[in-house]
Amino acid sequence: MAVFRESLMLDLNPEEVTATRARSKVTLVGIGQVGVACTVSILQANVADEIALVDIREEKLHREAAHLQHGGLFLNAPKILVDKDYSVTANSRLCAVAVGVHLREGESKHTLLERNVEAFKYIIPNLAKYSPDAVLLIVSNPVDILTYVAWKLSGFPKHRVIGTGTSPNSASFRSLLSEKLQINPSNIQGYIIGELGESSVAVWSGTNVAGVSLQDVDPSWDGDQELTRQIQRNIADSAKEAGSLRGETSWALGLSVANLVQAILKNLRTIHCVSTLATGLHGIEDEIFLSLPCILGSCGVCGILKQPLKETETRQLRSSAERLGAINKELRL
Amino acid sequence: MAVFRESLMLDLNPEEVTATRARSKVTLVGIGQVGVACTVSILQANVADEIALVDIREEKLHREAAHLQHGGLFLNAPKILVDKDYSVTANSRLCAVAVGVHLREGESKHTLLERNVEAFKYIIPNLAKYSPDAVLLIVSNPVDILTYVAWKLSGFPKHRVIGTGTSPNSASFRSLLSEKLQINPSNIQGYIIGELGESSVAVWSGTNVAGVSLQDVDPSWDGDQELTRQIQRNIADSAKEAGSLRGETSWALGLSVANLVQAILKNLRTIHCVSTLATGLHGIEDEIFLSLPCILGSCGVCGILKQPLKETETRQLRSSAERLGAINKELRL
Amino acid sequence: MAVFRESLMLDLNPEEVTATRARSKVTLVGIGQVGVACTVSILQANVADEIALVDIREEKLHREAAHLQHGGLFLNAPKILVDKDYSVTANSRLCAVAVGVHLREGESKHTLLERNVEAFKYIIPNLAKYSPDAVLLIVSNPVDILTYVAWKLSGFPKHRVIGTGTSPNSASFRSLLSEKLQINPSNIQGYIIGELGESSVAVWSGTNVAGVSLQDVDPSWDGDQELTRQIQRNIADSAKEAGSLRGETSWALGLSVANLVQAILKNLRTIHCVSTLATGLHGIEDEIFLSLPCILGSCGVCGILKQPLKETETRQLRSSAERLGAINKELRL
Amino acid sequence: MAVFRESLMLDLNPEEVTATRARSKVTLVGIGQVGVACTVSILQANVADEIALVDIREEKLHREAAHLQHGGLFLNAPKILVDKDYSVTANSRLCAVAVGVHLREGESKHTLLERNVEAFKYIIPNLAKYSPDAVLLIVSNPVDILTYVAWKLSGFPKHRVIGTGTSPNSASFRSLLSEKLQINPSNIQGYIIGELGESSVAVWSGTNVAGVSLQDVDPSWDGDQELTRQIQRNIADSAKEAGSLRGETSWALGLSVANLVQAILKNLRTIHCVSTLATGLHGIEDEIFLSLPCILGSCGVCGILKQPLKETETRQLRSSAERLGAINKELRL
Repeated sequence: MAVFRESLMLDLNPEEVTATRARSKVTLVGIGQVGVACTVSILQANVADEIALVDIREEKLHREAAHLQHGGLFLNAPKILVDKDYSVTANSRLCAVAVGVHLREGESKHTLLERNVEAFKYIIPNLAKYSPDAVLLIVSNPVDILTYVAWKLSGFPKHRVIGTGTSPNSASFRSLLSEKLQINPSNIQGYIIGELGESSVAVWSGTNVAGVSLQDVDPSWDGDQELTRQIQRNIADSAKEAGSLRGETSWALGLSVANLVQAILKNLRTIHCVSTLATGLHGIEDEIFLSLPCILGSCGVCGILKQPLKETETRQLRSSAERLGAINKELRL
Repeated sequence: MAVFRESLMLDLNPEEVTATRARSKVTLVGIGQVGVACTVSILQANVADEIALVDIREEKLHREAAHLQHGGLFLNAPKILVDKDYSVTANSRLCAVAVGVHLREGESKHTLLERNVEAFKYIIPNLAKYSPDAVLLIVSNPVDILTYVAWKLSGFPKHRVIGTGTSPNSASFRSLLSEKLQINPSNIQGYIIGELGESSVAVWSGTNVAGVSLQDVDPSWDGDQELTRQIQRNIADSAKEAGSLRGETSWALGLSVANLVQAILKNLRTIHCVSTLATGLHGIEDEIFLSLPCILGSCGVCGILKQPLKETETRQLRSSAERLGAINKELRL
Repeated sequence: MAVFRESLMLDLNPEEVTATRARSKVTLVGIGQVGVACTVSILQANVADEIALVDIREEKLHREAAHLQHGGLFLNAPKILVDKDYSVTANSRLCAVAVGVHLREGESKHTLLERNVEAFKYIIPNLAKYSPDAVLLIVSNPVDILTYVAWKLSGFPKHRVIGTGTSPNSASFRSLLSEKLQINPSNIQGYIIGELGESSVAVWSGTNVAGVSLQDVDPSWDGDQELTRQIQRNIADSAKEAGSLRGETSWALGLSVANLVQAILKNLRTIHCVSTLATGLHGIEDEIFLSLPCILGSCGVCGILKQPLKETETRQLRSSAERLGAINKELRL
Repeated sequence: MAVFRESLMLDLNPEEVTATRARSKVTLVGIGQVGVACTVSILQANVADEIALVDIREEKLHREAAHLQHGGLFLNAPKILVDKDYSVTANSRLCAVAVGVHLREGESKHTLLERNVEAFKYIIPNLAKYSPDAVLLIVSNPVDILTYVAWKLSGFPKHRVIGTGTSPNSASFRSLLSEKLQINPSNIQGYIIGELGESSVAVWSGTNVAGVSLQDVDPSWDGDQELTRQIQRNIADSAKEAGSLRGETSWALGLSVANLVQAILKNLRTIHCVSTLATGLHGIEDEIFLSLPCILGSCGVCGILKQPLKETETRQLRSSAERLGAINKELRL
């Protein structure tokens, strides 16, 4: 068809065409179910002008890329680059890591974590090398620990290392409240903070509908405990599933990741519960990452909302922090 | 070209094609600057599958329609029907009225209102006749009085007669707070309620950022009075301009109207400050319309948020209500 | 939380709320990978105001629905209804069937088809019963035969029974040409027609870039035969995969289905290669379905483009038609 | 409110926040009706992350900006900067010029052009100084001459100086064909090329529906001459109106400009009829700009489609070229 190109059009500046540098490049490492769901959601959000996909499974990589590219007619799709070599990721503004080492039969959680850390020791320095100014977004589980690992291994400033944390769960929380109250979730404020796990905290004290605090309606009320437990159970379940980064949670997670990517690439300064370095906040002393309401923009985490918490809520945060701190200290990085 | 149609394609069911009934038809009465801005915003929001434009200025009507239609390639444009006869509006789900009788030199505000009421006596019954189940959305000024007029003249239940009220001003309020706090307006709750005019009320008590109440940060704080005055001045200015439905406010108003239309046509149940029958709320006794936070959906106003107000805020509402009530009583409908 | 609803808001007309009837309801039968990909793409296209999902696997159905609903914050999501009972599909404007009976070990293609037909004998009459005016969109494979089956079983007029056919492949074709020519696919016209399989036809004679025919550039040229074979191989591969409705093609197929749904629900009158009753066209005599460029709108197939074909292209179509006709005649419906 | 900022949030890196450089900045010079319509359309297209507006009418500038900013809640609006000083435009990727010197009573077309050229002598070097790598997009009329003027004054390579030319008219052409054929305009290829004026050329020879050439349906057919004249009349009318850059054409023009901006900023490589340096094409010898089908992307005009023309079409192009050439030569630049 090369002959047609020439017969069909006059190229005004062929060099410039190929030299055009992407301005909103996103890298995604790991193309399991979660990785694909993230990629499709990012494509549909139409925010990246180039996407690089990296995975060690080269054949699968090329097949997925072909399918995504051929769906391009419907997506106004940007250039999709795939390779197992990290040079393909150069100059990304954001690098998301969605790899997941799978639990082997009989393997302990601890050994699994160690194997994940080993994978990160290869992935993170490579990403940092080719995109030294990027924002790192960790999707893999256990997210609070692996985001800490990515921070340490990258040498990046804290505001450029983020974990997806409880952002999908905060979305679920608002959706559940929306169903119960029959009001659009965009008018409901409600946040799930803390560790992604059973000890996550539903901040009922700040939950409100269009500025009317639920707490103020009934000051003696302590939140809908059943709903809290439902959310915590969902988190625990999905944490388990996502340990292997498979299963049905991939959709909601993909949409959530696309939402975070959009906030960062478009510098929206919107607020999201993501895993961030929490040292010094709410009395936390350890070097640990857990989810707090963060202002996301082109700098990554541009700021953290100073959310007033009840004593029980603070206590729960600190106990999570201690447990996470203990794990972090034992990691060999 | 008719011969080409036949040569080019095989029609499978020509009758059905023409009989296809619009499912999301919107009527817009009045195509001054505000009317055009509303139409373009509604087109860009891509929610209506048919738009009917009515105006007594037939020539202008056809010229505007032609321009909108030719921009259709970029807008996935629905069918646009124009006529000065109201039969063109039949079966609309929503009818917006953006006509504006202009102030004549030396004319009093009262005489202007009377002329507007006369125009409504022709417009509203015609809309009600051709779309008996539609939601009426009044954009014309003075909006709180003319929405009352539309309610009386249509005989529609109260939840199907709405005025744009302070919805654009609440948006401005959030934008101004957003600029000052450097946080995306979607994470800021703040409402301007009451009469569209200098006596409108900025509800500082419920204003919050992602659930963190500004009032709680400093309980002695009484709101940013300078900002309140700025908003009130803007409202007063734009009320004046829009009395003649001209001028530079048309953009913000058009975007705001498209936002309300979307909430209603897509049954979003989002919350907006719109002019609604306020009798029985906040101690208001008269039959008057003013802006309160309403849940908008396919029923029009599906519900009204019970917003706790300070005593000064309630007082201001009631005094507006009394003044509006006095005007409403004197109207000859 | 019920107590909060009352404390928080004044319901203006609770009956009407619940009675609100969906205007753009879509049903999807079968929630395997393809079904989920279709659902998410339809959600992201934001065209349906209610989605009903039906599958015999009730537990999976509820889990998928929960994930989709919780992603709702990001999708402006419509109501999602799930059930194994077809009453949930009532009043749909479009019903898509993406079920796939899986090939058992050692099973012949013929026996598999027979089992698919048995499934359709249950599904189609149920859809027709609850949504007698809907458009049927068949995604399951072998799509040309199963669309014929759906037509026969539903008793619907031919313009309301459509198979996805070669629509995703025509998209791939344009994407591949786009890559080679470095021009956006929206400016490239090119169609894959005929049977979804190895005998599909790439219509090189009409292929053009912004109105400049490739054939006219070099009249002796007979199309890029290598590209044709690549497309045919892809079709054959994906037909095999999709026989079990699994695998990696699901994304492109989901996006393609959402594109067709949009054309029909928004009455766009855009042209797509879909499987339609071809009797009487291009010399085809049998009652068979295969893909031709169709104008899709609210009537389903509103018209078929009369595409001039070369003799070899017509011959290929007819031979497919004969083979499909033979299979159709043997079906016990 | 500054005190609140601090109480509400912890800033992670305040310097970086302010240092964030826009990656997709667009400048618009001239905020008459056309300029505002362009700005709003660009905002709604959601492609720029910063917009700079320049006009010598400072007060109007600030009022317009305020209205646009306050509509920001609905537009996911980027930062809007306004000033009469060109430093505000620094580092734009695209600069659009929509200023229009108005015809004074009794003034000749020639004197008007001279005054426009004087305005460009101030505007263009200023834009080139602050954004040396930008693409210039000229909207002002007479567009073909003023684009030549901008090219000369900027010293930019030809591919980075573009006039809107017949792009809105090609859109109208497709819309009119769409209405007549009852097929979506996205499936219709048809182009209006040449000078923006009565001598523009409707290229009927390449006009087709989804690859089926109208010419092939009836080889003796010479195009719909009435439609051609209608298009030419519209162009002549709008050229007159837009001479003063006012009037009702502003909408279609605004949408069209946003469409071009999107193609360039998102590197879409879509084809648009825009005014480009035509020397050496179709036998044109003068240094003149007129509209031809161009591939637009991040380099500006990345290529020009080699469109086969009939002899009469070529003749018309050349005669336009000669007239334009004569005018260009007389300009004192």
